[in-house]
Amino acid sequence: MKSSQTTALPIGVFDSGVGGLTVLKALRDGLPHEDFIYLGDTARLPYGTKSQASISRYACQATAHLQKQGIKLLVVACNTASAVALDALRQRMHPLSVIGVVEPGATAAVAAQPGGAHLVLATEATVRLGAYRQAISARDPQATVRELSCELLVAIAEEGWNSGEIATAIIRRYLAQIDGYRPDSVILGCTHFPVLRDAFAVVLGSGVAIIDSAQTTAIAASQMLAAASLCNNQNGTGKLSLMATDGPTRFARVGGRFLGEKLVAGDIELVDI
Amino acid sequence: MKSSQTTALPIGVFDSGVGGLTVLKALRDGLPHEDFIYLGDTARLPYGTKSQASISRYACQATAHLQKQGIKLLVVACNTASAVALDALRQRMHPLSVIGVVEPGATAAVAAQPGGAHLVLATEATVRLGAYRQAISARDPQATVRELSCELLVAIAEEGWNSGEIATAIIRRYLAQIDGYRPDSVILGCTHFPVLRDAFAVVLGSGVAIIDSAQTTAIAASQMLAAASLCNNQNGTGKLSLMATDGPTRFARVGGRFLGEKLVAGDIELVDI
Repeated sequence: MKSSQTTALPIGVFDSGVGGLTVLKALRDGLPHEDFIYLGDTARLPYGTKSQASISRYACQATAHLQKQGIKLLVVACNTASAVALDALRQRMHPLSVIGVVEPGATAAVAAQPGGAHLVLATEATVRLGAYRQAISARDPQATVRELSCELLVAIAEEGWNSGEIATAIIRRYLAQIDGYRPDSVILGCTHFPVLRDAFAVVLGSGVAIIDSAQTTAIAASQMLAAASLCNNQNGTGKLSLMATDGPTRFARVGGRFLGEKLVAGDIELVDI
Repeated sequence: MKSSQTTALPIGVFDSGVGGLTVLKALRDGLPHEDFIYLGDTARLPYGTKSQASISRYACQATAHLQKQGIKLLVVACNTASAVALDALRQRMHPLSVIGVVEPGATAAVAAQPGGAHLVLATEATVRLGAYRQAISARDPQATVRELSCELLVAIAEEGWNSGEIATAIIRRYLAQIDGYRPDSVILGCTHFPVLRDAFAVVLGSGVAIIDSAQTTAIAASQMLAAASLCNNQNGTGKLSLMATDGPTRFARVGGRFLGEKLVAGDIELVDI
């Protein structure tokens, strides 16, 4: 049994920028009584095109700042950081529990189509490391996996051009790169991509499952808190604190689209890590 | 009269990433006997969406590294850094001469169409500062200027999808935001954009001048070296050193398209600044 002090601590959510707000949205929907602190390392984004060493260093510095605030669980709401730095973060944060988004995403894909053909759309760094390939194969050795880096989809999601002809044309052009491979599931392996869900559905049609790890990550977080008796039993909706390492104005404007609610720059705390 | 030691020093060229290689290309074409050191701050790119304070700090740190190598002229081959940090860099680098790309671009636009209507396409930070608007108005008070931030064009240039339907559709969608404004000249206010020149020409047609500051910057550099008796009189083609703060593999792959020649990752020196 944990002390009430520990159960009352917030859940820390970390991303390189605003994409992780799609994960935060799912977490808040699934865990309405929890408090959350979100940190976007906007001064150093994007992580997806940077080297493994830089990504790992940045992720460790940023999450150390969350740990200092006092948190009871860390969610790494960034596929690239999850792919590159999850082991390093778990070592540094011990005994704090750390959940990434790659493992829940792989679990959801395998559950959707056992023995299936999966296509992972992600950033360059996530693809280079084969993080989804490994996580899916470990859960389902019969599965086949193809991975495709789609940097332009990050930019179009940030621009807010989430549907329409340009979004679908870009998705079609990326998918043309996989030749005859016919996936049963397409895994949105970057937290920016869920806002493009309608455009993916138009291009993929009804026969392909679209896997978004945000919801599975929220379920994993819920189970972990329950198992460790760390659930917050407060009445009412939990508090949300938002922090960024740069540009609160842009964070509010672009991030609002990812969180699905209006954000005000004055509510984003600028932090130096 | 300068010593031969000084004239033999390289020209330092600085950018947040690989876009400045379009400027380096013009500099090498115009000044074939000069040696060049290029530094791309790839660990912290893109500058275009970051705050003024961060951009200025990053630019000062990066160019200090170039200064330590020994250079006779600094070219800031990044519109965002030129817009935000040129004064700060000139103060820090004094007595070294520092040339940015905004002033030469404004000069070229005014020369192309005195009293004309100009449209500046740039990053969010360059637009926010109104750098081109100020530089053009100072040279031609009769001119009118509109500025438009076009982040997605950076991403499409990095992806190498430089022409074709997606590139033209994105440009058309951005231009639809200026309503009835009919520019005489379109200024490519980001060093990534010259590789999209063909797509711009398709959309804009023949009646609009496309202004790329790379060539004007090369002319300004040439005049400055001549005036200060700093030209390198060596025979043959000058040497080129390339440095990046992260990811030499991506730098070589993407940068090669901007420089217009094949680059090998092993030739890019990784530096910690």
